Amino acid sequence: MKKKSLLYFQSGGPTSVINTSLYGVITEAKKHPEIDGIYGAIHGIEGVLNDRLIDLRAEDEETVELLKQTPGAALGSARYKLSNDIHDDDYKRIVEVVKKHNIGYLLVNGGNDSMDTCTKLSKLFKEIDYDCNVMGIPKTIDNDLYGLDHSLGFPSAAKYVAQSLQDIQIDNLSYDKGKVLIVEVMGRHTGWLTAAAVMLPEELRPDRIYFPEEDFDIDEFGALIKEKYEEKGKAFIVISEGVDANIPSEDVRVDSFGHKQLGGLASELGSYVQDKFDVPVRAVEFSLMQRAGVSHITKVDQNEAIRISRKAVRSVLKDSNSGKMVALKRGVTSTGKYKSTCYLQKASKVANVERKLPEEFIDDIHNGNGDLMREYLAPLIEDGIKLDYENGITKYAQLKKVRVE
Amino acid sequence: MKKKSLLYFQSGGPTSVINTSLYGVITEAKKHPEIDGIYGAIHGIEGVLNDRLIDLRAEDEETVELLKQTPGAALGSARYKLSNDIHDDDYKRIVEVVKKHNIGYLLVNGGNDSMDTCTKLSKLFKEIDYDCNVMGIPKTIDNDLYGLDHSLGFPSAAKYVAQSLQDIQIDNLSYDKGKVLIVEVMGRHTGWLTAAAVMLPEELRPDRIYFPEEDFDIDEFGALIKEKYEEKGKAFIVISEGVDANIPSEDVRVDSFGHKQLGGLASELGSYVQDKFDVPVRAVEFSLMQRAGVSHITKVDQNEAIRISRKAVRSVLKDSNSGKMVALKRGVTSTGKYKSTCYLQKASKVANVERKLPEEFIDDIHNGNGDLMREYLAPLIEDGIKLDYENGITKYAQLKKVRVE
Repeated sequence: MKKKSLLYFQSGGPTSVINTSLYGVITEAKKHPEIDGIYGAIHGIEGVLNDRLIDLRAEDEETVELLKQTPGAALGSARYKLSNDIHDDDYKRIVEVVKKHNIGYLLVNGGNDSMDTCTKLSKLFKEIDYDCNVMGIPKTIDNDLYGLDHSLGFPSAAKYVAQSLQDIQIDNLSYDKGKVLIVEVMGRHTGWLTAAAVMLPEELRPDRIYFPEEDFDIDEFGALIKEKYEEKGKAFIVISEGVDANIPSEDVRVDSFGHKQLGGLASELGSYVQDKFDVPVRAVEFSLMQRAGVSHITKVDQNEAIRISRKAVRSVLKDSNSGKMVALKRGVTSTGKYKSTCYLQKASKVANVERKLPEEFIDDIHNGNGDLMREYLAPLIEDGIKLDYENGITKYAQLKKVRVE
Repeated sequence: MKKKSLLYFQSGGPTSVINTSLYGVITEAKKHPEIDGIYGAIHGIEGVLNDRLIDLRAEDEETVELLKQTPGAALGSARYKLSNDIHDDDYKRIVEVVKKHNIGYLLVNGGNDSMDTCTKLSKLFKEIDYDCNVMGIPKTIDNDLYGLDHSLGFPSAAKYVAQSLQDIQIDNLSYDKGKVLIVEVMGRHTGWLTAAAVMLPEELRPDRIYFPEEDFDIDEFGALIKEKYEEKGKAFIVISEGVDANIPSEDVRVDSFGHKQLGGLASELGSYVQDKFDVPVRAVEFSLMQRAGVSHITKVDQNEAIRISRKAVRSVLKDSNSGKMVALKRGVTSTGKYKSTCYLQKASKVANVERKLPEEFIDDIHNGNGDLMREYLAPLIEDGIKLDYENGITKYAQLKKVRVE
């Protein structure tokens, strides 16, 4: 039996369950005698490059438990992008650090860029004949990872979005003359999260949902708002941050130095229609709350985050699994309830591909009743989890971060 | 025994428990044989002026129960301001409608403007010798009502603010080079809600909290951000929407027609410092979520909303209570735990007065450890409530709204 250490790191935008994956990794890794050190890299791949590793065995049980309700990336994330050439200096440095700490198992927790990293490192280690297996653990609230039924983090973010849309839409309906409510939801290239708006009961649903998968026509947008406001004294629009709105340049606001306004599409579009049609607008951006809101972590999301990382730890022990990722398939139980199965697929199949919201989902939302998306999403967001509180807000894990020399 | 009908209406900005007050009113009113019809006015005082009353006895039990988890103002709110002269036409119309429906008990649920309405109507009915008692039920997330320990709606909004600040601050700490995080919290004239930031554990607290009770110096603000960002690669600022930031005019963004940007202070200040110091900024506005987020309703807030409205119904039956409001006093149980007592005070004492965040609280936040505010707020936000869900989001009350002819 080879006895080697395991290294785990986090990458890309955090989700409210990425630290639940870390919880799963730590608790599972402790069960395997062939795993020596259990290490985490601080700030993703940068932590590997800078040899900033911490000893995850040094964290006490309560802290590890609290990872399940800690937003952000507890080990720190990074935006650093590795070169495409696996013979460049960064990779030499990675090999150096990995060898120094006798790493034999490497787990990369991230989105499609991370799956690319996973593929490259696996290839590199084989090429230099260094015995280290690399596997991926998927996450992204955008839900754009190819080949998975859904990504870890997406269900909880979707629950936040659906609940908050309902809350603020009901609030906006409180006035006889309300406002044009324009809400911006995360999703740079895909509209999965924005589509969570279909979870609202029919009478509360938006007048229109805009997805980045479709072309956007600002004149049509303006005309729709004008029409709805004249009809009802209010309007409700949900839009994905990735929509290219193409606001006419004379309507873009700048200061006397030519600087553009910070911030979101909702606010830009809101300013635009407010002036054009003299209607009162409220622009809302769900911002970091949608990916960091631990109060909306779903049971399915948490369970799957734990199961996937456990399977990743068990699988990474086998050489033949290097370069793979743990994926999720949807199924039903004998009583017709949702269940999911974890399976392995090549990380390279996921890397650098974007899974768009399917055309039939979009069409069904605009022209049907949105059942396709609703049936897909409902089982993922059904139940919440129990959280531990102190002074009225949730406790969180503060890692000791004992440095591995 | 006089047998007359009760009329209740909602006014001003909604809170997440204003409909819990309505729940308390309906369930209590049903117990009193001297109350004939139980009516609600649609869109506050406008509903009275337009004779748009609904029969609250016609709502089924499940719907009434769901009011406790329904945001917004279920009867509709209004921004209409009555004249100061109780002999003007609006008041004549109010008397007409009240007489038509044999209203003997009138409950006004709102902030300090509503307490003014309550005072005026009570005076008017006495003057014309019409037998109708008027009482106030307080609400406002701003917590600026004079003479109450706290206002209904404030605890739940404060729990939202504290929890969300923690969530997004932890997220912002995930990167080595993070951003300057500027978060805007509601509170036009007072900083109570913004002060909820002290609930965060010490290591997560903001670098600076800005209250409307204090003067704001934009140069000092810029210097602070520059210093913190250079020191830590990030910064965390929480600011009340009511702060007068006085951004130099050349830094204000306008389009080619001279229109200013829609929206918040956080975004304006963010744009300002981003350009001035070339630092990355994320501006976040908690917007409607802080007053509509039913997921953060606190047990104390809910219990008090029910107890106060029950007491209001019982008290409004007595002529001598007309013109009063149900207020809240804080106490402790024999075991040192938080408790509160409802009592009556003159609505005129509350009307048109603003209770500011005390100087000693502000000073303790800036120069001490914030214990004063923390001790004040902690018991109010400690526990949450259980909510009923359908399809992953909360159910809400959809009133039948049967019109009273």
